[in-house]
Amino acid sequence: MFFALSDANRRAMLDRLSIGPASVSELAEPLGIALPSAVKHLAVLESGGFVASEKEGRVRTYRADPRALAAMETWVAQRKARLHAQFDRLDAYLAARASRKRP
Amino acid sequence: MFFALSDANRRAMLDRLSIGPASVSELAEPLGIALPSAVKHLAVLESGGFVASEKEGRVRTYRADPRALAAMETWVAQRKARLHAQFDRLDAYLAARASRKRP
Repeated sequence: MFFALSDANRRAMLDRLSIGPASVSELAEPLGIALPSAVKHLAVLESGGFVASEKEGRVRTYRADPRALAAMETWVAQRKARLHAQFDRLDAYLAARASRKRP
Repeated sequence: MFFALSDANRRAMLDRLSIGPASVSELAEPLGIALPSAVKHLAVLESGGFVASEKEGRVRTYRADPRALAAMETWVAQRKARLHAQFDRLDAYLAARASRKRP
């Protein structure tokens, strides 16, 4: 999932797809990359759950898939919650130490 | 930022640090990796804004830095909002087409 986002061209493709579906050539052209390279990037995004594709005749159309974003949201929220719990414990510890020091 | 998370050992280190601060050896040991390798992973996490470190005497202690998680949260939320806007436009288009088809 995170590997899929570790490349600037793949992130640019996702940004383009967040506006609406597009073909491989529509995704490759603004980035100035070759079609086979774009196809590889899209395969990585597809296996990461960020895009889905459909073939109609000879044209494959890619669209953004919201599931990977939802999974990322959960991942970040879990880590944030743990971090806040850690800070709360530190606050409690410091408060307890400060009150012990008072006469 | 996403490159930092693209490695399972780095994600495991982040999970460990979400519980509380730790030294390099405390982070390396449960993963069964060598100290120099752990130091490299931590440098990547630090440059991505996921961890911060402090040196006291000869011991460097690492702690989770909440800023990168906050940046990721923003990134995900922006893409989700755009995707929802895209779906809303599609809904509106389909509704308009359906109403035109009705006699």
